[in-house]
Amino acid sequence: MKVVMAQKILRANEQVARENRERLKHLPTVNLISSPGAGKTTLLERTIQALRGEVNVGVIEGDIYTTRDAERIAGQGAAVVQVNTAGLCHLDANMVGRALDQLDLAGLDLLFIENVGNLVCPAEFDLGEDYKVALLSVAEGGDKPVKYPLVFRESQAVVINKSDLLAYTDFDINKVQEEIRTINPDILIFVTSAATGEGTEGWYAWLREIVRKKRSATG
Amino acid sequence: MKVVMAQKILRANEQVARENRERLKHLPTVNLISSPGAGKTTLLERTIQALRGEVNVGVIEGDIYTTRDAERIAGQGAAVVQVNTAGLCHLDANMVGRALDQLDLAGLDLLFIENVGNLVCPAEFDLGEDYKVALLSVAEGGDKPVKYPLVFRESQAVVINKSDLLAYTDFDINKVQEEIRTINPDILIFVTSAATGEGTEGWYAWLREIVRKKRSATG
Repeated sequence: MKVVMAQKILRANEQVARENRERLKHLPTVNLISSPGAGKTTLLERTIQALRGEVNVGVIEGDIYTTRDAERIAGQGAAVVQVNTAGLCHLDANMVGRALDQLDLAGLDLLFIENVGNLVCPAEFDLGEDYKVALLSVAEGGDKPVKYPLVFRESQAVVINKSDLLAYTDFDINKVQEEIRTINPDILIFVTSAATGEGTEGWYAWLREIVRKKRSATG
Repeated sequence: MKVVMAQKILRANEQVARENRERLKHLPTVNLISSPGAGKTTLLERTIQALRGEVNVGVIEGDIYTTRDAERIAGQGAAVVQVNTAGLCHLDANMVGRALDQLDLAGLDLLFIENVGNLVCPAEFDLGEDYKVALLSVAEGGDKPVKYPLVFRESQAVVINKSDLLAYTDFDINKVQEEIRTINPDILIFVTSAATGEGTEGWYAWLREIVRKKRSATG
């Protein structure tokens, strides 16, 4: 019975996700998914800084109750809309649709959706985005892709973050990359420290590329 | 509509949780909840070692797909039952009831339920346990209690783990403890490194105490 209900929710979600995708057809959109504390907000802050004057970034901030992350993003001068899920553990397409109403979509070059901190449920909900990106912190341990494969299978890129902690953990970066590629052979992998900036250039280059690609595709 | 369905699921869950609680009335039971990679399994491995010969520990291992954690626990010689949720992001009382069928409950002194790695949904499901214990890794960042308050409100104890990483992060241990106590004034807080063993003695002392208490209460 539980499974049937879950499927119903997902079916309704798919319809709204299609409407969102239509509204976003000129705007490249990235859905960031990770466990709590993997560094999504810190990576976004640094990304907005790095692309300032070149790529106009908007952010939809998903959080269960607080507006802490949205305040951090607003502090960077980016357009931000907060979505409070009021207890729910993931964003769905309806919530994102309501957030899109609040944004000047024509004035943006790139839209991030920062999902609720949860490596499991957010991967099941299409929000109408172009790309899912999984973040994995070095401090979480290298077994996470094998234990939580869905988000890595659904994502076009993964950011292995907190590389500044590699020396203090038993995280085997080569083995983890192999295991991620076993789950998803086509996934792009970036190894970064959002705290220090190490490794972020490749990430920015990919973002510039997806902006350029959608511009040339949609004229 | 989604909320109504969630309430229905939770109501059915409550009934089964009451049945589990009745079956566990002689056996102290701890439901461990955290984000992926906060160190639940490592803490359990060390705890089983430390209490060996004194407290007979059983473990119900919740995982989405793999048996990796159950294998680690079995390697410590503890009785372990694996529950695969097959995609679901939390354990529910039904799954735990089926796992209880597989355990020799009379031969155990203490039962752990290691929930799926998820700081959000597991907090909503009563499994019939006596205690919820939240784990929080220093590497996750100190804002997590405020952002994900439910699990801290529902828990009788919190283990702040990976204290060996305190020197390499901006985690403010005093501030975080204050914020946890603002959410839940009665919560017990242990600061540990399951990797090095630092700070684990207080945790073991509490476990011995809950075993002693239930023994004297149930004769």
